[in-house]
Amino acid sequence: MRRSEIEAYRAQYEKELFESVVPFWERHSFDRECGGYFSCIDRDGTIFDTDKFLWMQGRELWGFSKLYNAVRPEVRWLDAARLGADFLREHGKAPNGDWYFALDRSGRPLVQPYNIFSDCFCAAAFAGYSKASGEEWARDLAIGGYRRIQERKSDPKGVWTKQISKNRPIKAMAMPMIQLWLAEEFADLIPEAELKPIVDASVDQVLGLHIDRKQHVVFERMFADGSHPDCMEGRLLNPGHALETLWLVLRVAEARGDRGMIEDIGQVMLWTVERGWDEKYGGIFYYQDFKGFPTEKLESSMKLWWVHVEAIMAFLLAYKLTGKEIYETWFRRIHDWTWTHFPDPVSGEWFGYLDRQGEVALTLKGGKWKGFFHVPRALLNCATWFGEMETSCTPSGEYRAPEARKTGASA
Amino acid sequence: MRRSEIEAYRAQYEKELFESVVPFWERHSFDRECGGYFSCIDRDGTIFDTDKFLWMQGRELWGFSKLYNAVRPEVRWLDAARLGADFLREHGKAPNGDWYFALDRSGRPLVQPYNIFSDCFCAAAFAGYSKASGEEWARDLAIGGYRRIQERKSDPKGVWTKQISKNRPIKAMAMPMIQLWLAEEFADLIPEAELKPIVDASVDQVLGLHIDRKQHVVFERMFADGSHPDCMEGRLLNPGHALETLWLVLRVAEARGDRGMIEDIGQVMLWTVERGWDEKYGGIFYYQDFKGFPTEKLESSMKLWWVHVEAIMAFLLAYKLTGKEIYETWFRRIHDWTWTHFPDPVSGEWFGYLDRQGEVALTLKGGKWKGFFHVPRALLNCATWFGEMETSCTPSGEYRAPEARKTGASA
Repeated sequence: MRRSEIEAYRAQYEKELFESVVPFWERHSFDRECGGYFSCIDRDGTIFDTDKFLWMQGRELWGFSKLYNAVRPEVRWLDAARLGADFLREHGKAPNGDWYFALDRSGRPLVQPYNIFSDCFCAAAFAGYSKASGEEWARDLAIGGYRRIQERKSDPKGVWTKQISKNRPIKAMAMPMIQLWLAEEFADLIPEAELKPIVDASVDQVLGLHIDRKQHVVFERMFADGSHPDCMEGRLLNPGHALETLWLVLRVAEARGDRGMIEDIGQVMLWTVERGWDEKYGGIFYYQDFKGFPTEKLESSMKLWWVHVEAIMAFLLAYKLTGKEIYETWFRRIHDWTWTHFPDPVSGEWFGYLDRQGEVALTLKGGKWKGFFHVPRALLNCATWFGEMETSCTPSGEYRAPEARKTGASA
Repeated sequence: MRRSEIEAYRAQYEKELFESVVPFWERHSFDRECGGYFSCIDRDGTIFDTDKFLWMQGRELWGFSKLYNAVRPEVRWLDAARLGADFLREHGKAPNGDWYFALDRSGRPLVQPYNIFSDCFCAAAFAGYSKASGEEWARDLAIGGYRRIQERKSDPKGVWTKQISKNRPIKAMAMPMIQLWLAEEFADLIPEAELKPIVDASVDQVLGLHIDRKQHVVFERMFADGSHPDCMEGRLLNPGHALETLWLVLRVAEARGDRGMIEDIGQVMLWTVERGWDEKYGGIFYYQDFKGFPTEKLESSMKLWWVHVEAIMAFLLAYKLTGKEIYETWFRRIHDWTWTHFPDPVSGEWFGYLDRQGEVALTLKGGKWKGFFHVPRALLNCATWFGEMETSCTPSGEYRAPEARKTGASA
């Protein structure tokens, strides 16, 4: 990639973040009356549901805190964060200290705290908010939340568990994935000695258990012995989730300076995208069955926004770390399809749910599961990474990845 | 409709039932090794998952018992029923007496008995099987199951309930719907004095609460005072479920001989199908939002087999009971679209999941939610109703509905 292209990409990602996505949520999502955020927002900004889903509340609080901490200390972003932080502090926790799944607009609980990912997003949210605001209570909520997640992680649904795990003791990839993200978010708040074993165990589970190197695939659900049940849930592939996990592992490999691990993860990313890419219509499938049987998910062939932005991050980061053309090729392919299909130039922000052909299936910009999170996180990360790449170009303007520089290659 | 057409329709529905659908399940679904039925069956008969989902086990036991009881006492249908009955009797119940949601192939429980519809399908199944087999234990299971459902119905998910209903006390239409079906199935086993109040209350809930006569719509979820929350779950429409419920209510109206109620229900069916029909591609949507906002269901625009066969039954029954042309028109329209898109002439049985355009989205013939139930039930009911209609034609061969005959109309 040439420096001029890198600069153009950075400008594109920054412009979209600051001129389309952030303003959309600033215009439409703040509930000034009851506190917290609206997340169910139709194409043009119409609020079509006022319930407060904790994943979405936590994610938006995380997002505005991140802008304040990582971009610049804009007072309006801190105010936006405070709107969610105060609401969550007042209404979000069940008597047992875990975070509810959903509240009504005014904060009355609607759905029990059965879902540990509510806790994960709220913990990361308060980690960011405590840094932005300096408030001690937010720091305590963050750290307490992080440690409570570690206590709950082996039995995340508690009394609401419907699976009888002794008869099918499955280990899922969602927990190690979120642990890797949480560890990044808590680097300033939790001692390294406490974080490192969690990160190491999460990386080991992904590399040692979920990646099947014989069959060139990442399985979501495994038995501890490395086998997996030959049934719908055992064969279910989720390429977007695999790529999200893999870029988080890639960040660990980068921090460790482990070139072999970087190469290895890059290879697994290629297996994943080559299998997950829709050759007929373009884009990446939501779900697949490893053997090609029907999945139990009716929406398997749909094209989802988060799948695509996670894939963009994965291949951009792999290219940034290695300079290899194959990652650049995939980055460009996914970037082109994504930017052609998801952004809404009329009202701003991105559509989330396209059918297989790439047509908008649901017109929402935010809903129960889509909020102020994946798109801004990806735009910000990519802009940052492009910015770092600009400083690593040769005098003639060609990008040179770290390893290539070390081995003395020149343009 | 003319007698010749009625005969042709009856022949079509019977041929499909006995030459395509029943043989497919006879060929592929019997687990002779472990007992019970395979329900996850791909296009050509390949079993892609051997788990035993109790909805599907109960439904298939119900289906083969029904064939034996209602069509003719074929020994092989009783044998097929016994295969499921013995498996369910041995493995299906949790220690507390409720039916598990899922077992593995050998019968070990995988998912707790959180779902009262497992109990509903198993109760109806054993009602039919006890009649077919004459076995006392099956009769006891059926009657005990029916009465346990009445105990559980106000708190169907028990300890697995995640909704905090005091803050949003919603009444759903699924329970009255299934009660109406169960009452038909238990007519020989439960005293009329016990059934009637349940039927009356279910009909009253549908007519008085879920049907909104001002807005011409059937809502799935209501508050007891007739309002409903203006949110995704409150506005969710499910036209197939509404039509399924309405034809079960129509059966009650028929039994009561209540012409006004029949006219009323027919009108509600028209509101439902006029709103639910896809003018662009044909077929009936799976889900809709009352105000046209995005639903929380990604699969909303898909076309599902059960939606269409329930709609066929609804309009055929309405036509049979009234002779009105508008119901005949809708019956023909839905019949034509359904028979053009769902049946698989290559390997038999019907596809279940089409995309909005009517293309096969999932190739399965059976899965976690599609089994030996909706298609054979509809084919059998429609064949029976056509058979009854043949006997109600004028000498010149025109169908005359009961009321028309009573008022002395002649051809």
